[in-house]
Amino acid sequence: MSGTSVDGVDVAVVDVRGSGISTRFRVVALGSVPYSMATRQLILSYLNVRNTSVAEISQLNFFIGTLFADAVVKVCRQFQVPLSTLDLIGSHGQTIYHQAIPSKFGGRRLASTMQLGEAAVIAERTGIPTVSDFRVRDVAAGGTGAPLVPYVDYLLLRHPRKNRAVLNVGGIANVTLIPRQCPVERLIAFDTGPGNMLLDAAASIRSRGTLRFDQDGALAARGRVNSHSLRQLLIDPYYKKRPPKAAGREQFGIEYTRRLLRRMKTMSTADVLATLTEVTARTVTLAIRRFSPPRLKWDELIVSGGGARNLFLMSRLEALMPGTRVLSSNEVGIDLDAKEAIAFAILANETWQHHPGNVPSVTGAQRPVILGKITPA
Amino acid sequence: MSGTSVDGVDVAVVDVRGSGISTRFRVVALGSVPYSMATRQLILSYLNVRNTSVAEISQLNFFIGTLFADAVVKVCRQFQVPLSTLDLIGSHGQTIYHQAIPSKFGGRRLASTMQLGEAAVIAERTGIPTVSDFRVRDVAAGGTGAPLVPYVDYLLLRHPRKNRAVLNVGGIANVTLIPRQCPVERLIAFDTGPGNMLLDAAASIRSRGTLRFDQDGALAARGRVNSHSLRQLLIDPYYKKRPPKAAGREQFGIEYTRRLLRRMKTMSTADVLATLTEVTARTVTLAIRRFSPPRLKWDELIVSGGGARNLFLMSRLEALMPGTRVLSSNEVGIDLDAKEAIAFAILANETWQHHPGNVPSVTGAQRPVILGKITPA
Repeated sequence: MSGTSVDGVDVAVVDVRGSGISTRFRVVALGSVPYSMATRQLILSYLNVRNTSVAEISQLNFFIGTLFADAVVKVCRQFQVPLSTLDLIGSHGQTIYHQAIPSKFGGRRLASTMQLGEAAVIAERTGIPTVSDFRVRDVAAGGTGAPLVPYVDYLLLRHPRKNRAVLNVGGIANVTLIPRQCPVERLIAFDTGPGNMLLDAAASIRSRGTLRFDQDGALAARGRVNSHSLRQLLIDPYYKKRPPKAAGREQFGIEYTRRLLRRMKTMSTADVLATLTEVTARTVTLAIRRFSPPRLKWDELIVSGGGARNLFLMSRLEALMPGTRVLSSNEVGIDLDAKEAIAFAILANETWQHHPGNVPSVTGAQRPVILGKITPA
Repeated sequence: MSGTSVDGVDVAVVDVRGSGISTRFRVVALGSVPYSMATRQLILSYLNVRNTSVAEISQLNFFIGTLFADAVVKVCRQFQVPLSTLDLIGSHGQTIYHQAIPSKFGGRRLASTMQLGEAAVIAERTGIPTVSDFRVRDVAAGGTGAPLVPYVDYLLLRHPRKNRAVLNVGGIANVTLIPRQCPVERLIAFDTGPGNMLLDAAASIRSRGTLRFDQDGALAARGRVNSHSLRQLLIDPYYKKRPPKAAGREQFGIEYTRRLLRRMKTMSTADVLATLTEVTARTVTLAIRRFSPPRLKWDELIVSGGGARNLFLMSRLEALMPGTRVLSSNEVGIDLDAKEAIAFAILANETWQHHPGNVPSVTGAQRPVILGKITPA
């Protein structure tokens, strides 16, 4: 998979047994194949710039397909996993557009989402059946098409005696709330808002491109939260909206950050980063409190994604959730960098077994649906 | 399916038994759901205009998906075929880009093709598993991605004792050459060049939009071929190129026609149409002669597509192929308007049965591949 940060392709080779709630898995290999600077810029240009042509979109689709195929081949070679031992590829693709709220088009009101990375190219180059386009079906069924990982959180992390909140901090942060013995139909999960997106963009802009992110949150840890800015930032109506809801790079992306930074001109970079870290920490913890079942006490907050390496963010989460153990997903056996890639391997298995993979209470879809398209080998 | 002329959605409900060379079929219902003028213009604007955005392409994909789903539902209702009796939908989609010759993109040389009409929308709205994206896999395997119908021509029209040439005259014209007892690996098929595309565009431009086409070829029949123009038109290097080859609307589309008409300013509309009909008739018959096995004599030329209704074109084909019986595909049990729609029903069945559906000798692909993607119900 490749996420909203457009860094490269994360590959997880996973031995999956069973399906649905009896799914068991073992990670065989994990690798990340970064996009070259030119490729990253090329892809980003289509996300941000308005003018393109059908020719370019068609070529981009095949181009990203070759990158995904190459990434699978490369990681398998690196870990000496013969391609012939793979039964199935699950490819999330690169999201180039995601608009869950219907807007007018051709006289109809339509939501839509589009992931590129032609699965036929992946299947042809690897010789392995490929499941792709996971999000479109949920949108077609009236859902937001995101987040999809909560179903996998449920499969892998539900606990008979512990109330667990599962947090992923990528560009966007999202939580899955899994009270003990919660049936899948009652799962609550949603994007809480910005994860690393504001932080990374601010670090990059303030350092004039020298830093791509604030390693371990070290810079932020030296700063002080500007409470005036913080209050302003927490006003965004997104945070109060009831789930199901999903946030996009349009909402909290580079343009949003530029606007923020103009308002924070007089603050030091450390203070800016401390304040933006506090935004992520507060919006996560406030959201968990706001949308939890009443009086429920969370035993654990299990964090994955790049944000789990941000020690300062982790300490802020701990401080804001007294009585809850904050831990990295590594500690429960799920590589913190690879959770999403692992999730799409498991979702591909669900599709292959003809099981629905969305959670209507999470996406707002009218019903559970089988996700994705299968490209035969 | 919807073809390069972007007229609307052709729906064929087909009872298919068996698979591969033992395929048998019976047409249950045929219908055509025309695009509204606004929809047609909307779709055409993306094909012709260079500037668009990823947002619009994503919305267009879902939009066309709803049109295809609605067309299936409408035709089934009209013919009282309960949706629940359908096992499978094969959806060609609307081609918005097709470039079989690799060009440079992101530092790689890539061919690509893109059909829109989100299959997840079709599967969700109908509750029927949907096979879509037939062309991408052939392109991924190094082929031109077109034509794909020749495989179906072979399945349905090969004859133990007759040499048959099968011609479809849609916007573009293509032939499939099936000598008696020809093995599928030796099939020759290709686009011969313009079919109705130049004729329709010229009729429309010359009548200032009053005519969309020259009914039965009646206008052309009253004209005289301008031999100077004809010679000029037959010079196009496409015609001499050896197959595999495919022509696109880019090549013989509205812009090409406008250029032609400027050169034919002084000619009457009837003479223009007669000359352009002669272009189609000559390029078809010359191509059949040029690329046939040596000394082979064609017993039958079986014509489908709108061109089969053009009596003047049919008479010209007859005159140019003495000794060959020229007949409409209706006469061999295949509705001349619905051959392509029927073909994609049969190709969907091949995919469903895990049979390859391309013919490498036709598309230039490196090997036979299973076409398309399967969206579960």
